[in-house]
Amino acid sequence: MTHHLYLHTGQDETFRTLIEEKQIPELRFTQHKQDATIVLAAPPLVAPVIDDFPALRWLQSTFAGVDSLVQAGRRQDYLLTNVKGIFGQSITEYVLGYMIAHYRHFNGYRQQQQQQSWQPHLYQSLTGKTMVILGTGNIASFLAQAARHMGLIVIGVNRTGKYPKQHLFHDVYAIDDIEKALAVADAVVSTLPNTPSTESLLDLNMLNNCHQALLFNVGRGNTLKEDDLITAIEAGAIQHAFLDVFVTEPLPSSHPFWSHPQITLTPHIAAISFPEQIVDIFMENLVLWQQGKTLKYVIDFNQGY
Amino acid sequence: MTHHLYLHTGQDETFRTLIEEKQIPELRFTQHKQDATIVLAAPPLVAPVIDDFPALRWLQSTFAGVDSLVQAGRRQDYLLTNVKGIFGQSITEYVLGYMIAHYRHFNGYRQQQQQQSWQPHLYQSLTGKTMVILGTGNIASFLAQAARHMGLIVIGVNRTGKYPKQHLFHDVYAIDDIEKALAVADAVVSTLPNTPSTESLLDLNMLNNCHQALLFNVGRGNTLKEDDLITAIEAGAIQHAFLDVFVTEPLPSSHPFWSHPQITLTPHIAAISFPEQIVDIFMENLVLWQQGKTLKYVIDFNQGY
Repeated sequence: MTHHLYLHTGQDETFRTLIEEKQIPELRFTQHKQDATIVLAAPPLVAPVIDDFPALRWLQSTFAGVDSLVQAGRRQDYLLTNVKGIFGQSITEYVLGYMIAHYRHFNGYRQQQQQQSWQPHLYQSLTGKTMVILGTGNIASFLAQAARHMGLIVIGVNRTGKYPKQHLFHDVYAIDDIEKALAVADAVVSTLPNTPSTESLLDLNMLNNCHQALLFNVGRGNTLKEDDLITAIEAGAIQHAFLDVFVTEPLPSSHPFWSHPQITLTPHIAAISFPEQIVDIFMENLVLWQQGKTLKYVIDFNQGY
Repeated sequence: MTHHLYLHTGQDETFRTLIEEKQIPELRFTQHKQDATIVLAAPPLVAPVIDDFPALRWLQSTFAGVDSLVQAGRRQDYLLTNVKGIFGQSITEYVLGYMIAHYRHFNGYRQQQQQQSWQPHLYQSLTGKTMVILGTGNIASFLAQAARHMGLIVIGVNRTGKYPKQHLFHDVYAIDDIEKALAVADAVVSTLPNTPSTESLLDLNMLNNCHQALLFNVGRGNTLKEDDLITAIEAGAIQHAFLDVFVTEPLPSSHPFWSHPQITLTPHIAAISFPEQIVDIFMENLVLWQQGKTLKYVIDFNQGY
């Protein structure tokens, strides 16, 4: 059976070349939306035109975040899969790298170098610090393991308070007890997806449970109530925020986050999906699809992840 | 038996307070060098006056680096111990932190934030990169373990090519094969002490075995032939150097390292010995001393470490 694949990735040439190298005879590329049975696409690009694919049966997302496709009212008559398992290392490097850079004064030493100033400063080590990770999925579990190896105490927070499989969390709290976790956090890391229950979870009331914590948002922008962050910083709840995701991206140039000395912002690069990795997942799923088996990383439209 | 302790640490008040808290009746502080049987001191401070302690039997260094005390011609008629085992975590944070900051463009994103510029850049992950660690002692072994957990391939280099105890190196080369190790290195980390055989080990000929490697010197300044580094950078052997130790410290303000865009320099802070940690080691050794047992971290004057 021949599959007609439509690409809408933002890097279609790259993906086409990578997929053609795999030489799958049953797979043909199509430029016509009405012919496509399979779509490989970035959710923000494909969501506005999702109704233009009458033959669509399976959509492989090139992102982890599929919220633009699972919004209420959107069609749900196709199989939606996303990419997982390739972000753990990238997110871990981002979080641990910025934690070390913060506690070890990398920016301060860079300024001193520019001024030819030789001035040592005492520092804090990661050893014994407590990291609270919101979420206990793939990314959170990868981060927990790496953070533990670096000497941190790691607490996960999820809906049930149950430990995930093969985990290295020291403790897992249910979301109902999130305040207790935040109260002991030296660093809070949100890896949460965008769902109705995570929307604005981190508002001023919630953030005020923290005491001089570092805040990382590497999940989705809506989890943080952005208007409350600077107040939480001024209140001493948050010592420094490292934000990679925002409600509106790119972040508007008028936004106060750009110039705040206690906010480090990056343009959604904590974990980029490299095309090679995505194609590997797509190919693995294509084989399962051809065999009529269950695909990997299937999205539940009701849960939103 | 009463011991007379002389402090020459640069932070004598702090050390005196910490030691007094331990309430050791046999231990008295003395301000008179001629009375001191035990000295707790920073090597560069005590080395010039080491002959003024006629009763000296044991000197506990507050540094790992004791090269100023083991130089040819200096007295060797006392027991010299240094501090070990407390630097691994600090050095590891420094090396992995700066590696991540480099590969993940932390400085570039900081500049972009100041310019309100939202511009993602592709990056390289630590996964699969090769770290060559010169030395396989305590610090090197700690770093090897952490680097391996972060997905790096780790090769150690020591005199014999033998694996140390309880190690996580993927491979260990003898120093005679150092060129082969450097040729495959994405990052080279020197943790070597200052001895005649490590002096200027990393000269231009040696560095030219590298291909766009990151260079970290967290050992001793003399291991790197400083005059050769910028040439090695210009030749493409070294992509970026992270230097925490120098032949002359503080680094003179006229030195070209300060302003070189491919050199990051820090004022000997990769691993600071916190007084609390040093006092713990001193107390442990004091008990062994009183019991006539072998002390921990005894320096061999012939080997120099």
